[in-house]
Amino acid sequence: MLASSHTCGFSFFSIPFYLHTSSTDIMTINSDKLVSTFLKLVQIDAVSLRERPVVDFLRERMDELGLFWIEDDGAVPYGGDAGNLIVQTHPGHEPVLFFCAHTDTVRPTRDLVPRIEDGVIRSSGDTILGADNRAGCAILLTVLEQIAAHPQQYPPAEFIFTFAEELGLYGAAALKPEHLRAREGYVLDSSRPPGQYVAQTPSFAALDIEMIGKPAHAGVEPELGINALNMAVDFLRDFPTGRINDNTVANIGVISGGEASNVVPGTISMKGEIRSFDMQELKQRVRAAADRAAEVAQRHGGSMRFKDKIEFEGFTIDPEEPVCTRLHAAMRALNLEPEPQVYSGGSDANIFNARGRRAINIGIGAKKPHSNEEHIAIADMEIITRLVLELLAGRY
Amino acid sequence: MLASSHTCGFSFFSIPFYLHTSSTDIMTINSDKLVSTFLKLVQIDAVSLRERPVVDFLRERMDELGLFWIEDDGAVPYGGDAGNLIVQTHPGHEPVLFFCAHTDTVRPTRDLVPRIEDGVIRSSGDTILGADNRAGCAILLTVLEQIAAHPQQYPPAEFIFTFAEELGLYGAAALKPEHLRAREGYVLDSSRPPGQYVAQTPSFAALDIEMIGKPAHAGVEPELGINALNMAVDFLRDFPTGRINDNTVANIGVISGGEASNVVPGTISMKGEIRSFDMQELKQRVRAAADRAAEVAQRHGGSMRFKDKIEFEGFTIDPEEPVCTRLHAAMRALNLEPEPQVYSGGSDANIFNARGRRAINIGIGAKKPHSNEEHIAIADMEIITRLVLELLAGRY
Repeated sequence: MLASSHTCGFSFFSIPFYLHTSSTDIMTINSDKLVSTFLKLVQIDAVSLRERPVVDFLRERMDELGLFWIEDDGAVPYGGDAGNLIVQTHPGHEPVLFFCAHTDTVRPTRDLVPRIEDGVIRSSGDTILGADNRAGCAILLTVLEQIAAHPQQYPPAEFIFTFAEELGLYGAAALKPEHLRAREGYVLDSSRPPGQYVAQTPSFAALDIEMIGKPAHAGVEPELGINALNMAVDFLRDFPTGRINDNTVANIGVISGGEASNVVPGTISMKGEIRSFDMQELKQRVRAAADRAAEVAQRHGGSMRFKDKIEFEGFTIDPEEPVCTRLHAAMRALNLEPEPQVYSGGSDANIFNARGRRAINIGIGAKKPHSNEEHIAIADMEIITRLVLELLAGRY
Repeated sequence: MLASSHTCGFSFFSIPFYLHTSSTDIMTINSDKLVSTFLKLVQIDAVSLRERPVVDFLRERMDELGLFWIEDDGAVPYGGDAGNLIVQTHPGHEPVLFFCAHTDTVRPTRDLVPRIEDGVIRSSGDTILGADNRAGCAILLTVLEQIAAHPQQYPPAEFIFTFAEELGLYGAAALKPEHLRAREGYVLDSSRPPGQYVAQTPSFAALDIEMIGKPAHAGVEPELGINALNMAVDFLRDFPTGRINDNTVANIGVISGGEASNVVPGTISMKGEIRSFDMQELKQRVRAAADRAAEVAQRHGGSMRFKDKIEFEGFTIDPEEPVCTRLHAAMRALNLEPEPQVYSGGSDANIFNARGRRAINIGIGAKKPHSNEEHIAIADMEIITRLVLELLAGRY
């Protein structure tokens, strides 16, 4: 069942909101429950496009809590088995903030036996821990439990659990506008420590270039060939790489081609990227590279294929924007020093910002993501849970 | 049993040689037997280093014919299951000529069903026919039958069946000096038509080059990396390829390296070759390439590995040399027009010539070798069988 919605018996429709209190009970979290939820989540094996068991787990918890949820059918075109799960805390009311985590892990966690040492949770096996991003899921689930227990203390919010983030932000990109109603929100998916957050990311163009010549026997009749490697060299010598200026970096990261040492190479493939904080410059550089590749191909009498794709658009969050001032205030209320970061990677926040929803990806302390040494401190998960509650209840 | 020798009852020790006659019976070959021997041989599946069944087949035939044979242990270091088979037609007498074919096929011939159409033998399945070089084996076997039937009509000769030619002339290279006693000989392994033969081949150096930089995250901290692709480009822009002059061709045929588009490539591997009819020039060019690679690596702050290997030495057969005048005369006696060829590939003849044994690789008409379209005309096998007999009995 990919596309479905569920309305629970529990309803906030008639409950007045914004009864803000400073009572400590709404900020007191059950740490044991947070940890046990996290441990349950990481022991579910669910890689990108195979998130069904995680989404089912979340749906069951929502039903137990009596919260309203919708699962969309965004994964159908990708062949995924579960969509985005969207939870409305106060259905019928405009959400004021959204929060987002993703349900997939970059690699399998089958047979994972998590272990806890000195307050840090690690994988004890040959897999990732999966804190990226099950920690985000566990934190948002804990927050939702708190909201369900004290509904009057929180404004309406929407919680989005996206699919296949690791493959290229698929879930966020597939999210329908009606399922992202809040104007501002936070993504719990940065491996930075609590306090740090991504304030600026570049735009990112992926390049896939093929130089196509003509193979020939290199020993017997090399003049019958068109050397695709010579074409690639001519292209590469004029393609700047590394840090080009303060805005822009470029790279050709993979090259391969040719059949055998005695054959004039007929095709050379290259994969690369350009990242820039200036979208205008990025597009110009991509176009220049395409022109250069075409010129080289023509000069050699060969041909080429040049594919470019803006994988994600960059953004810069101004410190004066509400999404940022709110975050700073909430952090300071928890004695966290806000540290804006420039980060070149992408997250669901890139998609949201590109759609005009201000979104900040915040550090949750999931260290060494994508490696078998991945780990996370319980204290970091606790503070981020409290940060989300503070962002919601703090009324900044 | 890799290393073994066999002395048969049949002995030439006391028989006078050089009783040359022009009787036609010693030139009359049994074509049906030649074809049936070839068909039996191609239906034996025996790729390089797995030549045991072919060598066993040949050994049995030698025993039936009462001929003296030795199998050497040259394949042991390569992990092969059969060595070179050396047949002496008149043991105890210095052989005046040698003849050579190889026992391996470049690809399997399992389930091969050969078919004959209009006097041409083809594979009817999804494999090569294996005429390269089972045709050579069948021809030499037929010649040996003729010699066994008319021993007084032929001078002492040695017949060498080499292993793993297709992998890089392994068998010929492993042959001990005492198993190659004749000063001159012929290799039956060129795909050219009867009449053509290889009079000149270049020397051949194989190059294996690795540029080693340092990987780094291309988006976040490219300046921490050393770009091995930039090193490779700097090397390649100064490495001439194609036909460089009348003597020399060069090629970089394969390139590969890098991990991902967002990683500064840490290692780039290249495989190539230089071929030259001038050994001096070849060595100079190899040394220059090594110097250039070292200079590039140092300039970039990286390192490199440069391996070069003279795979085989070239040779030029002078038309006035006996090995050549004999061939021309024998060809003309059979109404074949001798056509010397320049050919860039290697064969066992390269090894023999490098050792001071004059050897000519002659065309046997095995067309489209190494492909499933491989085929050979029965008439071509017949004429080459007669050519070998003529070379032996003709006393040129």
